[in-house]
Amino acid sequence: MTAPRVLTLLSDFGDRDIYVGVMKGVIAGINPGLNVVDLTHQIPPQDIVAARFNLMNAYAFFPPNAVHVAVVDPEVGSQRRAIAIATAHGCFVAPDNGLLSGVWLHTPILSAVALTHPHFWYTPTPSQTFHGRDIFAAVGAHLASGVDLEQLGSPLDPTTLIQLEIPQCQRIGTKIVGAIQYIDHFGNLVTNIPAAALDERDWQIRLPSEPAPIPGLSRYHQVSLGAAIAVIGSHGWVELAINQGNARQHWNVIIGMPVELELIASF
Amino acid sequence: MTAPRVLTLLSDFGDRDIYVGVMKGVIAGINPGLNVVDLTHQIPPQDIVAARFNLMNAYAFFPPNAVHVAVVDPEVGSQRRAIAIATAHGCFVAPDNGLLSGVWLHTPILSAVALTHPHFWYTPTPSQTFHGRDIFAAVGAHLASGVDLEQLGSPLDPTTLIQLEIPQCQRIGTKIVGAIQYIDHFGNLVTNIPAAALDERDWQIRLPSEPAPIPGLSRYHQVSLGAAIAVIGSHGWVELAINQGNARQHWNVIIGMPVELELIASF
Amino acid sequence: MTAPRVLTLLSDFGDRDIYVGVMKGVIAGINPGLNVVDLTHQIPPQDIVAARFNLMNAYAFFPPNAVHVAVVDPEVGSQRRAIAIATAHGCFVAPDNGLLSGVWLHTPILSAVALTHPHFWYTPTPSQTFHGRDIFAAVGAHLASGVDLEQLGSPLDPTTLIQLEIPQCQRIGTKIVGAIQYIDHFGNLVTNIPAAALDERDWQIRLPSEPAPIPGLSRYHQVSLGAAIAVIGSHGWVELAINQGNARQHWNVIIGMPVELELIASF
Repeated sequence: MTAPRVLTLLSDFGDRDIYVGVMKGVIAGINPGLNVVDLTHQIPPQDIVAARFNLMNAYAFFPPNAVHVAVVDPEVGSQRRAIAIATAHGCFVAPDNGLLSGVWLHTPILSAVALTHPHFWYTPTPSQTFHGRDIFAAVGAHLASGVDLEQLGSPLDPTTLIQLEIPQCQRIGTKIVGAIQYIDHFGNLVTNIPAAALDERDWQIRLPSEPAPIPGLSRYHQVSLGAAIAVIGSHGWVELAINQGNARQHWNVIIGMPVELELIASF
Repeated sequence: MTAPRVLTLLSDFGDRDIYVGVMKGVIAGINPGLNVVDLTHQIPPQDIVAARFNLMNAYAFFPPNAVHVAVVDPEVGSQRRAIAIATAHGCFVAPDNGLLSGVWLHTPILSAVALTHPHFWYTPTPSQTFHGRDIFAAVGAHLASGVDLEQLGSPLDPTTLIQLEIPQCQRIGTKIVGAIQYIDHFGNLVTNIPAAALDERDWQIRLPSEPAPIPGLSRYHQVSLGAAIAVIGSHGWVELAINQGNARQHWNVIIGMPVELELIASF
Repeated sequence: MTAPRVLTLLSDFGDRDIYVGVMKGVIAGINPGLNVVDLTHQIPPQDIVAARFNLMNAYAFFPPNAVHVAVVDPEVGSQRRAIAIATAHGCFVAPDNGLLSGVWLHTPILSAVALTHPHFWYTPTPSQTFHGRDIFAAVGAHLASGVDLEQLGSPLDPTTLIQLEIPQCQRIGTKIVGAIQYIDHFGNLVTNIPAAALDERDWQIRLPSEPAPIPGLSRYHQVSLGAAIAVIGSHGWVELAINQGNARQHWNVIIGMPVELELIASF
């Protein structure tokens, strides 16, 4: 017996309504044997930047034959394209609004199509407000059931896909100037400084609202309860945290706030 | 190999506790091969009206052999009946409190039983407070595993099942007078006016708290960011929304607030 | 065909981020055919007591060959041990911080190991902050796929595992003095008084903030809407509730508040 294929779902649909359940109904109608995994449905409404960040950090942990369906779609009903792309680390189905632009930053696109073939939709006359159900879920289920990407619609030049322009951190001498790009459920602050930007030297972080520099360490337990700490987070970005506390509340920060990382010569 | 059967769950159990997990444990003990899908567990506590609305709008998107277990059960432990019904669009298991009355509004009942046969319960001595675990989950799992509805208990006359009396919209000349029946996660206002009530004419909506009429249009992108719009929502009801905003917050409305729809002659 | 094995997940990771989704990615990479069930991911951050309580009340409803992975891990990155234990009612994988100490209170440990064998981890160089992904999810998936517990690491003496010392209720004459140990989604107050502590007599409860004694009854429907009631809850503990209301809000109580139960002679 073949192992079930994985289909993941990410959206801003929340968990109060039946939107996600209905997408799973459409998927089960096409292939009830798929292994459907929720990445999250708590993306803030219409926040493509948060959706891009979460999907970018998640897909690589799934089997390479997984299909990822991501729907944060403020322009639903307009002429924005619906797309699917293939990579060596999975296939992706989404509106063409930059949501997938974090994925192809790290993983080259092997092929891309516009979802123009209604045969693979839930209905040839989709609603104007819920393409998650009427197009994306159905296309994802067909893709995860063995339909070739090329069959789903007309080929696209990957260079025409919408990019989200995300601020990058900058190295200036022994400093790296970046910003908070995400705040997680624990209140940990994820910067846009990748671990790869650090060299072998020690480092520390400065936040505008914190007079003392925050030491860059490798483990939470090296500091006392309630102390500030900077670590390489599990997604590979520099993160700021309060040991067993909530850094968002502690510093009252928001996404976009600047951070300054200093590299310190080791002796 | 047969495809896995789908069993859906809807409740007011929330996601903070283990109530839903424990129901899935009971289901897995009967048949670990079922495809269990959560519709939602965020129904407001004991809100049968919201449960009825959500289930009514969800079931038709699932395979016709799916079993839907719905538990919002303020009278648990009393003499209220536990029931199962069969329709051409799936079987349903629930307390007899009106929760299923939105389903049979659209889909005739083929047969109905009272769940009086303890052989198909989790335990012959169910708790007084958690029939979701002790009766409904177990019965649903047996039904989805091939047990005949008739085996689950004594036959019921469908006309004796509890109805929820839900206010209907009324057509008065060129006006349709209705009300807000649901507000979703995005803050969109779902009225009780079905798309079928509109004829080919143009239409607009009036809300008590909004001086300007709200145009009835087909697509969000026809209006500017932050503008009010009325659309046929994905469930087939007239909905009011703020383009990329939150209509509940914008108008500070609650469920039950009246809306007035005007049909406008086309020229 | 063998029935799929169940693997449950319990954590404080919430549902806003991709932490849980990524654990499921790791699991699917090892065995996409497992039946993965969420117990809850809404444990308050780093609250081992709440995690212990929920897991203790859930596992017995699952098939005895289920594997339960529980991750509330404030000491992640320190020298705290990662463990797996086998019982007659399932295997458990968790940090050694007392999270499992409610399980072995009721179910003897058959064998215990420290998770010292990196072959069964997601990566031999785990992150310092996310062992849920890098160790626990992977080990759980291997265990649920047939790997023997003994292969996962070095054997442990169960008496060396960390216990959480939880206040026990005390019987003093015809009184039982206990405390609120958990408050659920409905606002029901779960005490630390087990049903087994009650004998055949009638009983009533006193709360510091409620002048009138609260009658111990068997069914919610025996009291009127909004009335206070004490029942044996579905987990087997004495619970305080407001019929179709929210007891936490009604009495403004917190976890740890004392309760006094009086046994009353029947005549």
